[in-house]
Amino acid sequence: MRVVRDHLAEPVPDAFRLPIRIYWEDTDAAGIVFYANYLKFFERARSEWLRSLGFEQERLRAETGIAFVVTETTLRYRAPARLDDVIEVTVRVAHLGQVSIAVAQQAWRDGRLLAEGTIRVGCVEIGTFRPRRIPDDILTQINAPAR
Amino acid sequence: MRVVRDHLAEPVPDAFRLPIRIYWEDTDAAGIVFYANYLKFFERARSEWLRSLGFEQERLRAETGIAFVVTETTLRYRAPARLDDVIEVTVRVAHLGQVSIAVAQQAWRDGRLLAEGTIRVGCVEIGTFRPRRIPDDILTQINAPAR
Amino acid sequence: MRVVRDHLAEPVPDAFRLPIRIYWEDTDAAGIVFYANYLKFFERARSEWLRSLGFEQERLRAETGIAFVVTETTLRYRAPARLDDVIEVTVRVAHLGQVSIAVAQQAWRDGRLLAEGTIRVGCVEIGTFRPRRIPDDILTQINAPAR
Amino acid sequence: MRVVRDHLAEPVPDAFRLPIRIYWEDTDAAGIVFYANYLKFFERARSEWLRSLGFEQERLRAETGIAFVVTETTLRYRAPARLDDVIEVTVRVAHLGQVSIAVAQQAWRDGRLLAEGTIRVGCVEIGTFRPRRIPDDILTQINAPAR
Repeated sequence: MRVVRDHLAEPVPDAFRLPIRIYWEDTDAAGIVFYANYLKFFERARSEWLRSLGFEQERLRAETGIAFVVTETTLRYRAPARLDDVIEVTVRVAHLGQVSIAVAQQAWRDGRLLAEGTIRVGCVEIGTFRPRRIPDDILTQINAPAR
Repeated sequence: MRVVRDHLAEPVPDAFRLPIRIYWEDTDAAGIVFYANYLKFFERARSEWLRSLGFEQERLRAETGIAFVVTETTLRYRAPARLDDVIEVTVRVAHLGQVSIAVAQQAWRDGRLLAEGTIRVGCVEIGTFRPRRIPDDILTQINAPAR
Repeated sequence: MRVVRDHLAEPVPDAFRLPIRIYWEDTDAAGIVFYANYLKFFERARSEWLRSLGFEQERLRAETGIAFVVTETTLRYRAPARLDDVIEVTVRVAHLGQVSIAVAQQAWRDGRLLAEGTIRVGCVEIGTFRPRRIPDDILTQINAPAR
Repeated sequence: MRVVRDHLAEPVPDAFRLPIRIYWEDTDAAGIVFYANYLKFFERARSEWLRSLGFEQERLRAETGIAFVVTETTLRYRAPARLDDVIEVTVRVAHLGQVSIAVAQQAWRDGRLLAEGTIRVGCVEIGTFRPRRIPDDILTQINAPAR
């Protein structure tokens, strides 16, 4: 049953994962993590995932004049996280195109799904923000089976 | 034609609007507004919209023990905003339920659509985060024709 | 008596002032404004103060290749601000040098001092971050008696 | 010579250290880390330092009704950090009082001092924000020689 699997099961086994600690800066007056901050957590996980594939975004900018920009975000918030929690954020490629990638991401704590969503990032030229083809070496790395 | 109207026309005439100035804190190393911050801008506009209807969230918390929490966000980013820009954020009720509201929001600058999306907020009990009926006076105010 | 004047009196009459509303994004799990955010509020007030003197930072960057960067901050937090509060942030030049300005700033709510401090900003060349003389027209404007 | 030691040497050997990665969320349109964010980085390091001594702030709140709040911050910014950098933030107790602690902190990258300052945190009662004595077990742990 899908609901059970989503909420109580563990994250997808082959997904990239980044543990993230919750600090004061992440919380709001309701005593929980401010929802907008999940976009930051998801971004950190995507950055570390790219890095794990061998790509640093600052170097990409300097060497190729391209950057990845977020063009669409869809998130559902299912349960709150709190100060001192360690959450685990996953990264899985949902769709790989020529100029953009759709990334499915989830945030978990102790086997409980806290938030999930899809982030679409486009490859653009620095300065003009015009779409550019994703470099072949990145496409190749992303397509390679997970280690 | 819808696309033309969305991108080049002005915001919906009867929507609530909040002008927001872009400061250093809102930008990132790409020289533009960091995409996650649109969720903050949209939140500010919803707060002012609630206030314009006569409701302060802090007082709601204290007097009724309820709060509105964001349960779902969908955003598309269409054009970048930059330091010193003044953008205009709109609020329009897309769907009004018993325990949640779907709010359609847009960010504009000089007749150009920068970002748009739908934010679903649920009415919950403080502490337990269990769903609660939206108080009648709020429902009534939201349903009243815009002044 | 200085303490009384600081805490209970109104802000310095001739200081530049910016009213700022407190939103969810500004608060933390202690139910109050997260202290680091006062640096953002003070920055917004300095930006609007510069703008009131006729200077936009984005245009400065583009036209003169210079920017103001913060080199030192000293803040004391005296009383908490909360969700829905409107605070008033003041700007007063404490010291005007050739390459840097020390700005004395305070945050008030209803005649009560919430936070205060001094922010030193240096004038630098974009890219290298090397010190540059503050442009004469800015120095002249800052030295002019307040309108 | 103090300046040389500060800028080119390594952090104090016996200080607590937390490595922190710089992400897009941390940067601003000048292409560097937004200065206010060092307060967040310093806070993360203090939280992990407290945790290394056996104290979780959320549990402190729940069990003793006290919290540590920041009452004063003094920071100097010496060199910029950028996207993808890993910085190292140190924590050293500068002064230990009955109701407050002054913590000396620095941020380093590759043997270069980026920012440094002193953060004063006071022990307060949740809700009233009135000063409270720092619990004895915390005082004892802080006074114990570093492991």
